[in-house]
Amino acid sequence: MRRLERPVTLAQIAELLGVRVTRGSQEIRISRLASLESAQPGDLSFLNDSRYGALAGQSCASAVLVTEALAASLPATSQPLIVADPYLAFAKAARWFESQLPGDRGHSGGIHPAATVASGARLGGGVAVGARAVIEDGAEIGEGSAIGPGVVVGAGAIIGPGSRIAANVTIYGDCVIGRAAIIHSGTVIGSDGFGFARESGRWLKIPQLGGVVIGDEVEIGANCAIDRGALDDTVIGDGCKLDNLIQIAHNVRIGAHSALAGCVGVAGSARIGERCMIGGGAGILGHLEICDDVVISAMSLVMSSISKPGFYTGVFPLLENRDWEKSGVLVRQLPQMRQRLRELERLTKENK
Amino acid sequence: MRRLERPVTLAQIAELLGVRVTRGSQEIRISRLASLESAQPGDLSFLNDSRYGALAGQSCASAVLVTEALAASLPATSQPLIVADPYLAFAKAARWFESQLPGDRGHSGGIHPAATVASGARLGGGVAVGARAVIEDGAEIGEGSAIGPGVVVGAGAIIGPGSRIAANVTIYGDCVIGRAAIIHSGTVIGSDGFGFARESGRWLKIPQLGGVVIGDEVEIGANCAIDRGALDDTVIGDGCKLDNLIQIAHNVRIGAHSALAGCVGVAGSARIGERCMIGGGAGILGHLEICDDVVISAMSLVMSSISKPGFYTGVFPLLENRDWEKSGVLVRQLPQMRQRLRELERLTKENK
Amino acid sequence: MRRLERPVTLAQIAELLGVRVTRGSQEIRISRLASLESAQPGDLSFLNDSRYGALAGQSCASAVLVTEALAASLPATSQPLIVADPYLAFAKAARWFESQLPGDRGHSGGIHPAATVASGARLGGGVAVGARAVIEDGAEIGEGSAIGPGVVVGAGAIIGPGSRIAANVTIYGDCVIGRAAIIHSGTVIGSDGFGFARESGRWLKIPQLGGVVIGDEVEIGANCAIDRGALDDTVIGDGCKLDNLIQIAHNVRIGAHSALAGCVGVAGSARIGERCMIGGGAGILGHLEICDDVVISAMSLVMSSISKPGFYTGVFPLLENRDWEKSGVLVRQLPQMRQRLRELERLTKENK
Repeated sequence: MRRLERPVTLAQIAELLGVRVTRGSQEIRISRLASLESAQPGDLSFLNDSRYGALAGQSCASAVLVTEALAASLPATSQPLIVADPYLAFAKAARWFESQLPGDRGHSGGIHPAATVASGARLGGGVAVGARAVIEDGAEIGEGSAIGPGVVVGAGAIIGPGSRIAANVTIYGDCVIGRAAIIHSGTVIGSDGFGFARESGRWLKIPQLGGVVIGDEVEIGANCAIDRGALDDTVIGDGCKLDNLIQIAHNVRIGAHSALAGCVGVAGSARIGERCMIGGGAGILGHLEICDDVVISAMSLVMSSISKPGFYTGVFPLLENRDWEKSGVLVRQLPQMRQRLRELERLTKENK
Repeated sequence: MRRLERPVTLAQIAELLGVRVTRGSQEIRISRLASLESAQPGDLSFLNDSRYGALAGQSCASAVLVTEALAASLPATSQPLIVADPYLAFAKAARWFESQLPGDRGHSGGIHPAATVASGARLGGGVAVGARAVIEDGAEIGEGSAIGPGVVVGAGAIIGPGSRIAANVTIYGDCVIGRAAIIHSGTVIGSDGFGFARESGRWLKIPQLGGVVIGDEVEIGANCAIDRGALDDTVIGDGCKLDNLIQIAHNVRIGAHSALAGCVGVAGSARIGERCMIGGGAGILGHLEICDDVVISAMSLVMSSISKPGFYTGVFPLLENRDWEKSGVLVRQLPQMRQRLRELERLTKENK
Repeated sequence: MRRLERPVTLAQIAELLGVRVTRGSQEIRISRLASLESAQPGDLSFLNDSRYGALAGQSCASAVLVTEALAASLPATSQPLIVADPYLAFAKAARWFESQLPGDRGHSGGIHPAATVASGARLGGGVAVGARAVIEDGAEIGEGSAIGPGVVVGAGAIIGPGSRIAANVTIYGDCVIGRAAIIHSGTVIGSDGFGFARESGRWLKIPQLGGVVIGDEVEIGANCAIDRGALDDTVIGDGCKLDNLIQIAHNVRIGAHSALAGCVGVAGSARIGERCMIGGGAGILGHLEICDDVVISAMSLVMSSISKPGFYTGVFPLLENRDWEKSGVLVRQLPQMRQRLRELERLTKENK
């Protein structure tokens, strides 16, 4: 990242974070945030995990956001700034630094002359529309939102105020996106759900007549696909965060403040509760329900409803391939192994 | 979904479906399709699965498509319309309702002035091309097809009549797509297959000189990637339905009327038969063959050819994480467990 | 693929490959490359694998690149051209054939009048920019590179010379791509990493202030997502090859000449060594390290660092579903099975 043109003191950063500098100098000058590994003098870093203690010990950062417990890992040249949650403190510091950096040259604001905005579209004050974007009839873009180059906003779609839609996103007609959304490039919202009825070995398409409703302060990564509902809407609750390449099928409902890591697939009509965390590449089958506060490990498949908050995993452990060739075969033989165990138990009982 | 401006009678819907109203009134007025949960008076719903019997019991739908066996689940206020296959009947009703609704405001037809159509491209009668679409030289678009905004159709590509290519789809040069295709936004057809030969630890690209041939009445979801063949074509048979975020590698061949759910990956030169159903997130390794009428469960990996129609699964079951930590370790120890079992069997035999 | 207008002799191809025609005629005329299956007289094919021996025996190819050991599989009508590595020889032949075919009609060169190139962008000599592409302020495109239709190159991004960026790719601001890159349609480079800190059950976005640095001669398939770093850069080394629909999270570093098959997901801050091969759909968890020369099987999950080169697998084997229903249950019961085994061992020891 770029350096601030005018450094700030550690005391100023501490004030921003609502803490005090309890060790060393208040006056250390900070002009950049950096990772422990790449930090140079003048940089502020953070240490969040004892696994990185050794790395911290060699850091050249001038100051480090750290818990009391991990502060001893730091070298004499790195002054600790003690906080309860270094990652959260870093997030807040990063948001402040970003606000001090010069703005994005790509969004100069206003409607680019090479954009195509239908006469029946309604744009709020201060809306920016990038080159080659297409905004169809009846679409509404809320105040202060930025629509990137190449974005297509379908007829009748609504995007709330303060949202940022990155280049080449596609939003189908009549979808609704709340305020302060961030949607990254390549993502598609409102494509038809995968609905077909079988008739004599062929598939008959079921029109997908519902929509997509996305709450406030939702962020969706790159190249995701969020299908419109068959009859009802697909719903993503306020504050949800979706990483890249995620598939959300029709009629899925995700509760507020849930987070889905990259490559997750959620099948039709599944319901996910609030504050859930779904690991990368995990799958959720359709027509089931996951209660609030459930954590699913990466690449695990949820095959039935979960009604108890907790941490769930279903992954075959990684083995050297030659060992896997043995264990894999034996997984198939588990029923026979159990049968042999039963037989032995019977014989042993008789022999007693 | 929107209501019809002029309601129809249940008798009219029954006629459309080729059945008769055998209970209650012929004259009930229907103006909308709705799910059991969101239905209001005036709505027609469907009940397909005994798991939803309780939901059906509380529905406010005026009428419900249902089998004889499940009709008893309905409340007195919901009149059953008895059909053999409620899901298929619903599909047909939905298709009819959709045909009655006002058309898509986004596709007004004709070639948008902000589209770029090469002079050597050939467009059939009634073709619509959206704003910012690019149709390169030598491409052919069949009669009545609609090309969405931002779509790129490469040089020499052919799209059959009556097809609908949604916004921001990319079709590389010389690919062939049949009639009545539906391709959703973000999908890429004809990118280079992943072909490299190794030479002294580096990868030498193998030019991908084949194409992609997609049959008639194929639907492909959002953000899929279908690679062109290395020498021969990648082929997707008539009537296939692909969900979102699917990877089809070079030289894959998929038989007619197969359906692939979201996030499936099919590796190079795999052949999938007709009427197969591949569950979400499943993987198919390359250079193998799957016969007709095979069903693969979600997130299962097909590692060798399948020559017998049937239903196949390979998924580690989901466990509470603390249980998984035990079972996961034991999977690694299966060979030792079998060894211990053998030793016990030997000793028990001796002791007899 | 198309035939050459003027056929070449087998001797000419042999010379190109640095080998000699040791059997049959030097003068056989070749006008096309083809697979064993689709080859016709006048075609050159290759045989790389004994599994395809039967197919080779029926091929109509006039000549076949083949090892000494497999040459006996060929029919009398197919003349062997003996090479050490038929796949590599085929790659070289294909590259030569491609160079002889007429060029891509889509890229006529120059800047299309419907492209939007900011006045502050710098384009090298011979750069082609397709219709509807957008190149923002401060971006640099190296000499001879081709930017496809609909591509968005963000402010300050740098693309090296001789690169080919296919239609509808999105490159965010300030990302750096080396020379001779190939990036396929729909791919997104430089979207925000998935970084959020939790505060009272809500997610606070951490600005992603790093970039993406992609080395020379990298190929990236369709619809991939490569996130920018949080503070440092996400780095993809020289000569890496990425297939389609791959997720690369923030701060990942991939060593030179590694290859990732389709649908792979790599979580944040993971480091992958040089010359690794990651199978399709595999997952790599974050904050771990994989050493050089590691091969990971398809759909396997790497959950901890790997410090020994080798071949690793973690996949539940595919079973007929009714067998899986038994084995799946027993995986859960492994701890009890081990307990029963222990009890039997104790009893057997006592009984001795």
